Amino acid sequence: MFSDADMEARRWLRDMMGEAGLNATIDGVGNVFGASPNPGPALLIGSHSDTQPRGGWLDGALGVIYGLEVARSLGENQATSHLAIDAVAWADEEGSYLSCLGSQSFCGVLSPEEEISAANHAGETAEQAIARVGLTDVERVRLDTTRHVGYLEAHIEQGPKLEESGDVIGVVTSIVGIRTLHITFSGQQNHAGTTPMDRRSDAAVALFGYAVTLGEQLSELAGPTTVWTFGNARLDPGTESIIAGRADLVLQFRDPTDDVLDRFEQAAFAHAEQAAGSGPVDVSVKRARGPIPPTKMDDHLQAHIARAAEGRIPGRWVHMPSAAGHDPMILSDHIPCAMVFIPSIDGISHDFAENTSDEDIVMGCRVLADAAATIMS
Amino acid sequence: MFSDADMEARRWLRDMMGEAGLNATIDGVGNVFGASPNPGPALLIGSHSDTQPRGGWLDGALGVIYGLEVARSLGENQATSHLAIDAVAWADEEGSYLSCLGSQSFCGVLSPEEEISAANHAGETAEQAIARVGLTDVERVRLDTTRHVGYLEAHIEQGPKLEESGDVIGVVTSIVGIRTLHITFSGQQNHAGTTPMDRRSDAAVALFGYAVTLGEQLSELAGPTTVWTFGNARLDPGTESIIAGRADLVLQFRDPTDDVLDRFEQAAFAHAEQAAGSGPVDVSVKRARGPIPPTKMDDHLQAHIARAAEGRIPGRWVHMPSAAGHDPMILSDHIPCAMVFIPSIDGISHDFAENTSDEDIVMGCRVLADAAATIMS
Repeated sequence: MFSDADMEARRWLRDMMGEAGLNATIDGVGNVFGASPNPGPALLIGSHSDTQPRGGWLDGALGVIYGLEVARSLGENQATSHLAIDAVAWADEEGSYLSCLGSQSFCGVLSPEEEISAANHAGETAEQAIARVGLTDVERVRLDTTRHVGYLEAHIEQGPKLEESGDVIGVVTSIVGIRTLHITFSGQQNHAGTTPMDRRSDAAVALFGYAVTLGEQLSELAGPTTVWTFGNARLDPGTESIIAGRADLVLQFRDPTDDVLDRFEQAAFAHAEQAAGSGPVDVSVKRARGPIPPTKMDDHLQAHIARAAEGRIPGRWVHMPSAAGHDPMILSDHIPCAMVFIPSIDGISHDFAENTSDEDIVMGCRVLADAAATIMS
Repeated sequence: MFSDADMEARRWLRDMMGEAGLNATIDGVGNVFGASPNPGPALLIGSHSDTQPRGGWLDGALGVIYGLEVARSLGENQATSHLAIDAVAWADEEGSYLSCLGSQSFCGVLSPEEEISAANHAGETAEQAIARVGLTDVERVRLDTTRHVGYLEAHIEQGPKLEESGDVIGVVTSIVGIRTLHITFSGQQNHAGTTPMDRRSDAAVALFGYAVTLGEQLSELAGPTTVWTFGNARLDPGTESIIAGRADLVLQFRDPTDDVLDRFEQAAFAHAEQAAGSGPVDVSVKRARGPIPPTKMDDHLQAHIARAAEGRIPGRWVHMPSAAGHDPMILSDHIPCAMVFIPSIDGISHDFAENTSDEDIVMGCRVLADAAATIMS
């Protein structure tokens, strides 16, 4: 985000939006915005154009080009040329500086303090990056609730479910909530030779047992799409001849419902209490900052997408939650949102190998355009 | 080892040995050696004078002073003044440069290549350190099998067993063997949100399960004094939103018998094969370099120590293995060895808090002197 190549791509996109007849601009936070010259109400369609390091060609960019293409193609058709489609490419959804920077700015929920404190890996803040690319004094596009009646975003699934079920379109029901817990095991560091087994307070053994038993409990508590991950574990001091005195475990879990997230959290706390009570090692659990609540997509917009999918590919579409985060997590607090997924080959994403068949890419855009037309009609 | 303070202590010890009537020298590898002027056969008594960073005052140093004191006190007693007791303080038992450097040199099993390659944390090699303290051209004391009939070493237990049983003396039966295994779990790194649970090949989950199940098996296979430790575990990449594609676990185990060590090793390999066969993650086990075989102490010398202990503190001594390594691991290949343990308060060692009651310290030296006298009579 905000690299020379990124800004060159944004200027290219702005020019393409202009050629499509939109009033195109790069706003003060890097969002590329193409406003239809037609009077409102307007439907906003787009995605983000940034991705991860070594990410693929579809993540984000696909939905941006869909927005442009839907605006252009509806404009070319006499039956729909009166409809107002505003196209957008959000800045920094992936959070090189701050996750959903562009959509936060658009919704007016981004404070100047956040722009000053949010920094990339090299230590450059969002404010500095914006100054570097010459956008400091450029106006920011804001959500206009008198004009914008909804937001649609298409995206690759980034997972294997559509491919496995043989469906071409996923109508996103919600974006999963994410919570992270930090679990700390406090035992007694000691000599690995001279400390008998029955005298040990081994934080590593406590961590392994906790993870295995909690994992079994979570399997029982999970909903149909819940995922959970022990993404990190560290032993201290972590050398072969010393019994670990401390160990740290990170558990992240995602589900479309607060109900499951609550159950998981309760299980992690309860099992920590139980483990600490029955063993020699103290176990404590802390919630990480910034849990992400589940975000429901708008039922009315979903119904339009489902109808469009059924029209194009009868029986080959499904309702599904999104297991990854997207800009509608921000936007849906302010404007009705819906999302369209198309398949990811082998479920791969955030990798150069990310891909989708040409046929599926074309079909995704057709369904999105059909839905946009019926929503606005 | 080889610091200014260390060399000052060695010179002080050499002078004390001289005052006790021994022919004292610091040899070319840093060993402080006090040879009795009496003709052989001679009994060698001592320990090492180096310890760990932040180590305590007794580790090693206690046994060195015992050697000096036994040589001095037997020399002062007319009934024993004809006996030859050679006192020694070995260099670098703890391995700042190379474990048991001094006793390896003494036994003639240390190659010049090892001295050139063995380096401390600062990157200084043993050869460079020896040159820095001016010992390069100094002669090295060698084991003289026509003179030395045995080696005795006293040491703090460094564990809680004597304190718990209420015994004052441990007659060491053997020094435990140590083996280390590196267990690697190879799964598939993936997105923690979009990868469904049934599609995962999670190296972290495999590691936790392996450690718990193997730990239960090892409990069944253990001898009365076996210890085992999972001292390190690492997940790769080790971040909360990514399923670990690789995980590494270190298992060390110690026992006085090869039989138990073999059983443990077999269990670790067998469980890896079973886990890899039944789960989505590949598991491989590698033996670490330099396993340490169990070292049996000499029965004849043990019997003398046991008799001496029974004479001083009837019923308040035990036979026990040493769970930590000591110079007799090297020496016993060349000369009969035995060790005397005295209690460690709270089992603490390698820490400033390391301590033993004055009463126990005195009793340990009395038992050692009595044993030395009967061995040589």
